[in-house]
Amino acid sequence: MAKLDFSSARQGFRAGTLTPRKFLESCLKQIDRREPTVRAFVTLGIEGARKAADASDKRWKARKPLSSIDGMPIAIKDIIETVDMPTEFGSPVFKGWSGGRDSACAYAIRQAGAIIVGKAVTTEFAGAPPGPTTNPHDPKRTPGGSSSGSAAAVAAGMVPVAIGTQVGGSVLRPASFCGIVGFKPTFGALNRGGIGDQFSQNCIGTLSRSLEDAWAVAHEIAMRVGGDPGFPPFAGGAAPAAPRKPDVLAVLETDGWAVTDPPSKRAFESFLKKLRNAGVTLIDRRSSKRVADLESAIAGASDLSLGINDYEKLWPFAELDLREGRGLSEGLRRGIANGRRMTPDEYVALLARRDHARDVLMSLAGDVDACVTLGSAGPAPLGIGSTGNAVFNMPASMLRNPALSLPLLKVGGLPLGVQLLGFPNRERQLSATAGWVFGLRR
Amino acid sequence: MAKLDFSSARQGFRAGTLTPRKFLESCLKQIDRREPTVRAFVTLGIEGARKAADASDKRWKARKPLSSIDGMPIAIKDIIETVDMPTEFGSPVFKGWSGGRDSACAYAIRQAGAIIVGKAVTTEFAGAPPGPTTNPHDPKRTPGGSSSGSAAAVAAGMVPVAIGTQVGGSVLRPASFCGIVGFKPTFGALNRGGIGDQFSQNCIGTLSRSLEDAWAVAHEIAMRVGGDPGFPPFAGGAAPAAPRKPDVLAVLETDGWAVTDPPSKRAFESFLKKLRNAGVTLIDRRSSKRVADLESAIAGASDLSLGINDYEKLWPFAELDLREGRGLSEGLRRGIANGRRMTPDEYVALLARRDHARDVLMSLAGDVDACVTLGSAGPAPLGIGSTGNAVFNMPASMLRNPALSLPLLKVGGLPLGVQLLGFPNRERQLSATAGWVFGLRR
Repeated sequence: MAKLDFSSARQGFRAGTLTPRKFLESCLKQIDRREPTVRAFVTLGIEGARKAADASDKRWKARKPLSSIDGMPIAIKDIIETVDMPTEFGSPVFKGWSGGRDSACAYAIRQAGAIIVGKAVTTEFAGAPPGPTTNPHDPKRTPGGSSSGSAAAVAAGMVPVAIGTQVGGSVLRPASFCGIVGFKPTFGALNRGGIGDQFSQNCIGTLSRSLEDAWAVAHEIAMRVGGDPGFPPFAGGAAPAAPRKPDVLAVLETDGWAVTDPPSKRAFESFLKKLRNAGVTLIDRRSSKRVADLESAIAGASDLSLGINDYEKLWPFAELDLREGRGLSEGLRRGIANGRRMTPDEYVALLARRDHARDVLMSLAGDVDACVTLGSAGPAPLGIGSTGNAVFNMPASMLRNPALSLPLLKVGGLPLGVQLLGFPNRERQLSATAGWVFGLRR
Repeated sequence: MAKLDFSSARQGFRAGTLTPRKFLESCLKQIDRREPTVRAFVTLGIEGARKAADASDKRWKARKPLSSIDGMPIAIKDIIETVDMPTEFGSPVFKGWSGGRDSACAYAIRQAGAIIVGKAVTTEFAGAPPGPTTNPHDPKRTPGGSSSGSAAAVAAGMVPVAIGTQVGGSVLRPASFCGIVGFKPTFGALNRGGIGDQFSQNCIGTLSRSLEDAWAVAHEIAMRVGGDPGFPPFAGGAAPAAPRKPDVLAVLETDGWAVTDPPSKRAFESFLKKLRNAGVTLIDRRSSKRVADLESAIAGASDLSLGINDYEKLWPFAELDLREGRGLSEGLRRGIANGRRMTPDEYVALLARRDHARDVLMSLAGDVDACVTLGSAGPAPLGIGSTGNAVFNMPASMLRNPALSLPLLKVGGLPLGVQLLGFPNRERQLSATAGWVFGLRR
């Protein structure tokens, strides 16, 4: 039962054949079973979760749920503040720290009646140095990062949905490695208040087993706290749009294709063949000048994103370095030092390149349904000392458009995601395409 | 000496005729003298300030100042986090609270060698309910708000510069009421990290006695922490541009003209006459279709801004209300309730109106040097139970363009500001116009 989508469990709540508390207990049992190996959680709030589930039971019994996610057990990445559990940012400096409040998404989740089960492992400040989490498909492999615990908890059946964040590839990559759905909405579409940084590519995203659950959670958050101040809140709807076969998909290689292993390339090419056979027109850099231009505009997306990100470390990270430098990783300190060497002029030049790439993406918006590429440069690599390469995920971060990683491929018995990139604030259209593409898995 | 601009004091530091510590002591003496009546400060950090001044003395003696504002005594609005003093947000809920860190601007100010003297009184969360501060020109009158203490401290000669913030009229209005320079840069141009909210019109601004000091502080902050993530940092230069007579100024009435008292209207009209006599072409809603369009686009700026602001209270204020409701003012709770009643659709419609107004402003950018209007609807009103009407300041907040209030008029013996509105990210051009206009005071 723990492997149920929440949207299926909800049907049980409605029919009276299942209760939120029973569903939660099945999740807790799964946590008991898998957590010693998977290590997805920093903190568990089991007592609070049971109390919240009992309250949800009563609402469903009275047929007065607070929302479509009332009773949904959720894990939250440990860079996101929660009033009842510490937020440690994957850093020894914040051991036991609490801001004494709920972040925007934690507040919204609770207001919607959903249940925060625990805080999921993050890399240090959602950057590079990983935590102890292992991949549920193979404990010798990384689950990806930085939303490592969020992805692993969902893939291991511990919770149906987890909240993550992405600046570079932190939602889409672990989703690809763990064989689940990763959803990064348009930049600004979900309120980031209380997540510890305000990087200009940082987004709240979801990790889930179904598209339905991803959309439901994004919708219920947006209805209660909106998006980032000044940005249109997520408007993809309470549920994904009806699946619709796309007319045209733009196939992107990105900088990632050159570093992708041959079996993964073959798996992706077979998938493209499936699309073609189903009657989808595929365009790419060879057949379309606009796709070629987009490939050029996103070439170097990793360096661009890291440069922007380093400059934006001037606060809070340079300030933190001053007070707590010895508690920060060498990598983070190098990033801060790099940010301090950059001039506003250099930063503005990077922003201009980013804006340009987004304009190029928009040149495709008229006749292309979505872009398609791999979710990662192969399945999860061996070892948990690194969370893997985010090269396939940087374009969507840089373009600040919505993107999904769908668990559609298998390579050497391990999951590999197919990534769909949509157009800014057109999550509804993206869900129609994704619903149809997702159907190809059968 | 406490009434010196810092740029003049700096000449003394260079020449060896004055030291930062001596300058600070003159400020502290002035605080001793005026604070019992003016009540500008919530917290004073005198010991820390003296230590910082002594360190600055050494650097100036060694001819190695850290920046152009090394040794500058600064007051900081008490919604801005400081590692060494509490941040209370003008709210009993945050009595004695500290986040244990420096906000972006406090960090930058210290890195530049400037001296944080204390935390200046703010209205509750920079909203409506005022603190105890009185107007230095008349203790029976309001200093304006929400940066009440920041403006009063500068006007009373307690510090040469204070940091404030503005969502509606919180920098420009108190500057007008207190007879000093208020500067609100382009939205995003100064990093807002650590100021407790992320309202989409909120800006860090400066209150000072001279244009030179305002530019120096904005520049030194931007050089150390940049602007908000994703926005171009302040690029107005380390010092204002050389004064330059504007060719064309657009005179705006805004919604404020209808509620301005006759003597203030006459004072503004005499000022316009001065401009005309000096050979400046003035255009207005009667002579220019584009100015008429801008007046229409900013009509209702107060309601629009308050609507946007209420929606953006969904976090952190609705979350805070849940935990600490009884500690919040009735007005704030009404705003939160209003935000909760708004739909994302209504919010996005307000954002679209705001974007439109900014497009209309840009239609003037080719041939207009700046817009000019009053800094407030008359001099500071009697009573400290309200901080006065922000109607003249809402347009620049809504347009998110740079604006200055310059202490150019006197009405009934009280100061009244003239406001100049520039174009987004063109602070350098605005300073050239402002320098020339400021010269008219002589």
